[in-house]
Amino acid sequence: MDLNNFTTVEQMEAETARLRECAACSGAETWEDRKKAQTPSCKFGEDGVCCRICSMGPCRITPKAPRGICGADANAIAGRNYLRMIAGGTAAHSDHGREICHTLHSTKKDGHYQVKDEAKLLRLAKEWDIPTEGKDIYDIAHEVALAGMMEYGKPFGTQRFLNRATDERQKLWNDLGIAPRAIDREIATAMHMTHMGNTADAEALVMQGLRTGMADGWGGSMMGTEMTDILFGTPMPKDTEGDLGVLEKDMVNIIVHGHDPAMSEMIVVAAEDKDLLDYARSKGAKGINIAGLCCTANEVTMRHGVRMAGNFLQQENALLTGIVEMITVDVQCIFPSLGPLSECFHTKFITTSPIARIPGSTYVEFHPETAREQGRDLVRQAIDNFDKRDPAKICVPTRKQPARVGYSCEAILKELNGVTNSHVDERDTYKPLIDCIKAGVIRGAVAIVGCNNPKVRPDHSHIEIMKKLLANDIIVITTGCAAQAAAKAGLLRKEAKDLCGAGMKRVCELVGIPPILHMGSCVDISRMMLLATDIAKDWGIDIPQVPVVGCAPEWMSEKAVAIANYVVSTGIDTYLGIEPQVKGSVQMMELITEGTRKLTGAGYIINTNPDTLVQAMIDGIEAKRAALGI
Amino acid sequence: MDLNNFTTVEQMEAETARLRECAACSGAETWEDRKKAQTPSCKFGEDGVCCRICSMGPCRITPKAPRGICGADANAIAGRNYLRMIAGGTAAHSDHGREICHTLHSTKKDGHYQVKDEAKLLRLAKEWDIPTEGKDIYDIAHEVALAGMMEYGKPFGTQRFLNRATDERQKLWNDLGIAPRAIDREIATAMHMTHMGNTADAEALVMQGLRTGMADGWGGSMMGTEMTDILFGTPMPKDTEGDLGVLEKDMVNIIVHGHDPAMSEMIVVAAEDKDLLDYARSKGAKGINIAGLCCTANEVTMRHGVRMAGNFLQQENALLTGIVEMITVDVQCIFPSLGPLSECFHTKFITTSPIARIPGSTYVEFHPETAREQGRDLVRQAIDNFDKRDPAKICVPTRKQPARVGYSCEAILKELNGVTNSHVDERDTYKPLIDCIKAGVIRGAVAIVGCNNPKVRPDHSHIEIMKKLLANDIIVITTGCAAQAAAKAGLLRKEAKDLCGAGMKRVCELVGIPPILHMGSCVDISRMMLLATDIAKDWGIDIPQVPVVGCAPEWMSEKAVAIANYVVSTGIDTYLGIEPQVKGSVQMMELITEGTRKLTGAGYIINTNPDTLVQAMIDGIEAKRAALGI
Repeated sequence: MDLNNFTTVEQMEAETARLRECAACSGAETWEDRKKAQTPSCKFGEDGVCCRICSMGPCRITPKAPRGICGADANAIAGRNYLRMIAGGTAAHSDHGREICHTLHSTKKDGHYQVKDEAKLLRLAKEWDIPTEGKDIYDIAHEVALAGMMEYGKPFGTQRFLNRATDERQKLWNDLGIAPRAIDREIATAMHMTHMGNTADAEALVMQGLRTGMADGWGGSMMGTEMTDILFGTPMPKDTEGDLGVLEKDMVNIIVHGHDPAMSEMIVVAAEDKDLLDYARSKGAKGINIAGLCCTANEVTMRHGVRMAGNFLQQENALLTGIVEMITVDVQCIFPSLGPLSECFHTKFITTSPIARIPGSTYVEFHPETAREQGRDLVRQAIDNFDKRDPAKICVPTRKQPARVGYSCEAILKELNGVTNSHVDERDTYKPLIDCIKAGVIRGAVAIVGCNNPKVRPDHSHIEIMKKLLANDIIVITTGCAAQAAAKAGLLRKEAKDLCGAGMKRVCELVGIPPILHMGSCVDISRMMLLATDIAKDWGIDIPQVPVVGCAPEWMSEKAVAIANYVVSTGIDTYLGIEPQVKGSVQMMELITEGTRKLTGAGYIINTNPDTLVQAMIDGIEAKRAALGI
Repeated sequence: MDLNNFTTVEQMEAETARLRECAACSGAETWEDRKKAQTPSCKFGEDGVCCRICSMGPCRITPKAPRGICGADANAIAGRNYLRMIAGGTAAHSDHGREICHTLHSTKKDGHYQVKDEAKLLRLAKEWDIPTEGKDIYDIAHEVALAGMMEYGKPFGTQRFLNRATDERQKLWNDLGIAPRAIDREIATAMHMTHMGNTADAEALVMQGLRTGMADGWGGSMMGTEMTDILFGTPMPKDTEGDLGVLEKDMVNIIVHGHDPAMSEMIVVAAEDKDLLDYARSKGAKGINIAGLCCTANEVTMRHGVRMAGNFLQQENALLTGIVEMITVDVQCIFPSLGPLSECFHTKFITTSPIARIPGSTYVEFHPETAREQGRDLVRQAIDNFDKRDPAKICVPTRKQPARVGYSCEAILKELNGVTNSHVDERDTYKPLIDCIKAGVIRGAVAIVGCNNPKVRPDHSHIEIMKKLLANDIIVITTGCAAQAAAKAGLLRKEAKDLCGAGMKRVCELVGIPPILHMGSCVDISRMMLLATDIAKDWGIDIPQVPVVGCAPEWMSEKAVAIANYVVSTGIDTYLGIEPQVKGSVQMMELITEGTRKLTGAGYIINTNPDTLVQAMIDGIEAKRAALGI
């Protein structure tokens, strides 16, 4: 095993420092500067005991003022703030899923958007009792899309996807009252409960948090994943590269950034149009290079192998290179700083969604009926911008790593089929993986997900935790910024098997997979829920018994809080490397760590030290193994 | 005119002081104590420039730190916080409206809940193209209820009630893109737009604020009003009383508090059951006295003449009397302090909604199928509690005022019909009122609405502004805590006409109304929108031209911010006596005062001095008159 083949956090930080140095003369400000200016943070906010929910205040809880003006105590205030974070996160993920439903609803034969995975569409139609026989595939698509949209607003009933869970989970969710009704209704309920003069009982707030999170993971996020697969294809393994070195000095560089792939798919397609390639060459460029940032990167890399420029805290660095002709964004995790920052360079900053209007950008609202031409137009504009680069501001990054991506559940099952005997063994089952876990060759699995957060050293926790897990024969599945951290470090290469023990290394070789499986974007954590569910089903146990845990070592956004809630509801322990902002309430801390465990079988384990956190995970997995007697 | 007949704020304050003094020995804490402990408030929060939307922060804007870690500036942060307040308010009002739809959906002949206003149901069915001919009234009710529920979640189209507006407004709303889609979708969109990494453009946030507010006023709130009228009857004028003196020393006192009348209606009905009255008498009580607090009071007083014990900042005072056997609450504006406070007395504190779970209460979840018996059971418990009073803690208030209430639009039209000649004049029109305004006998109208807020002297702004408006021949319509302030002051008596000039006094006498019309609860501000709309239609002008303005002198809750946004969208200037928490952003301040005026014809006028505020209103109305050439 040659550790030199992996990129260390120190090397990443050196590259960032070099870029910041290059860019300093441009007056470019990045998050590091702002973090410094914002330090120290307000303790009341950090502890969750600042209330701004009505205009009698703001109120803050102190020993001398243990209640707000209305009488809300620390538990009520921290609980309400926490539930509102979940509502925000669920709204973000789920609204993304809804947009994809609308895009699917706009598909037509010869349209800009088409159905790519007909088999998956038919499977979903069957699951939802939508008749398909003798029907045009686009009529089916529209019916499925409409049924999907109704999950957001139906007046009665709970989410359709809940039926996918184990019987035990479904019963538990119903018994606990956390089976989510219409997705938007749970958001509205969460906002209503937290309105001035409503729920002040922390336990009730936490329960609605679980239900609202469930509306995300088993509702809107799952919708996003399923509909996106139908539209743009279910991911299958492919090779790509990650880190800023994927930007090409001699090519027109276009970055797609955000989360919803509807826009970026059109840019990716346009960049392959011959006339535009010719046009780029006529302007002296060697070609058109599309690179992704954040989850939009994950979406297009999973389906097209588009290369990943980096994750959340790298979005400004991309511009600092001085060789990005255009950055187009859709929704979520987009720094408003990209406005002033792009003005320091020749970079065109394009916003495309009414959800994310940002000063300093050019707004090009994407519409399904014009998307193809809009994509082409943006690529053309980027090409026109190629010769506007300021040579004095160019600082070309070179570091990049190969990566293998594209591990949808369907892809994982296909890989597992490869090690079964088609004449003897059951196909399309996780049993080969379960056998490895039972035998102890693989001890268990950890889902590493989530953001970057300047509260901890960026990417360090992701990478160190992943390495330690591999060394302990624990397989890793990953999405989001965590997946990109792994890509940048070189941990998504098959060669990362060398970091594992002999047994697990051999498994990776036999199956032909890296030991860390890139499962997609943050909405694709829904894939992980299905993976855990189907492993439990194939194993014949309930989900909390499976030696699988989740971990968000560097989480930052409200979406992460929503995710944590559906993961815990699903019965999977969730290890957090950033403290949720409820520390000011002893009751809330107890509820989210131990309280939920009594109900769903899972809770949070919180530790800001990645070494301690990973050891806790290993111990947690071994405890689950012991309980199973394996 | 005998001013001694009116209760002054000083007299109200003296009563409060007396109650607090009586209760001091019980260790009872009230908002005055907590306000003191919470002073001074955090300036960042007050100015709207504290961001807690992700966990990288919290961030605060200062001259040295003009952007948060993500790059969001003061405009983005204040704008996001503001939009989230609107989302919270819209969720509260609209979810209340949804609950009422579900209650209507549960009605049946001989059921606990029945259709009381069949004519209104049939009108609404007709408006919504729901066939009624030959159908059972309950089948129609269920279809109308279902159609109402779908307004919360339908995948396509905008709110049905928008059709009620003037053609000019409808066109404007469509052109501006603020015609709201499904109610919950606007809440989700607002939460999504304000999620980390989305909209940082203050103008886009303000526009979504208008649309989200519209989803309240022309969606959920209007639904609440309409369905409630169908269920429990459309209010018609009736006499009642207001202020804590409505509590009876010798009777079993039950207070209903909150907003959704489904629960309180059942208590009101149960309190008239002969067996329970007999039971109360057997326990030594002279009877059962139901009194209301906040908007639940407004709901039951408008339909049953149930007496009003007081408004928002009086909720604790009610308990301080020591003679309240039970306080039952539904949703919104309920102080969590009622938990510990009720424990200082014999008072039973009952919560009834999963939306408002409060520590220290007994939780009795109301269900339509058991509501009647649950109502009876609570009354029985209250009776059982009658002899548990602690004589040492009794402090009986005596101050109360007669009040005339019940002015729905239907009621106002009926009163106006009374001054028309049925043989000659058009009926059911606002023309008699319009003629008075044109003639200048009435200069215009002001809707005084909203909460109490300890940031200003409670009730003082409401009362002083009302008196000054009457003196200037401006008619007042009122709802919510403002209406209760008027009731307590004695301003809802017909005799309040003596505060007006001779012309307007004569009009009040002729029509037989007080000069201040109690139009109901906060969701009933939707009635005011219809009133303004129909006046504009009958007049043949657009709404912003009508000499009508809105005013929330002491607003406190997020609902008020949602209301302000639909009022402004409807083209009605809104005068605020409390500053919205966006002061830290010059752009936001400009947008909410002048920016919206360029678009909708209306904006906020903000002044914390009630004298200055009322003069601005008078000037505003006179300017509108001048523009009309009247």
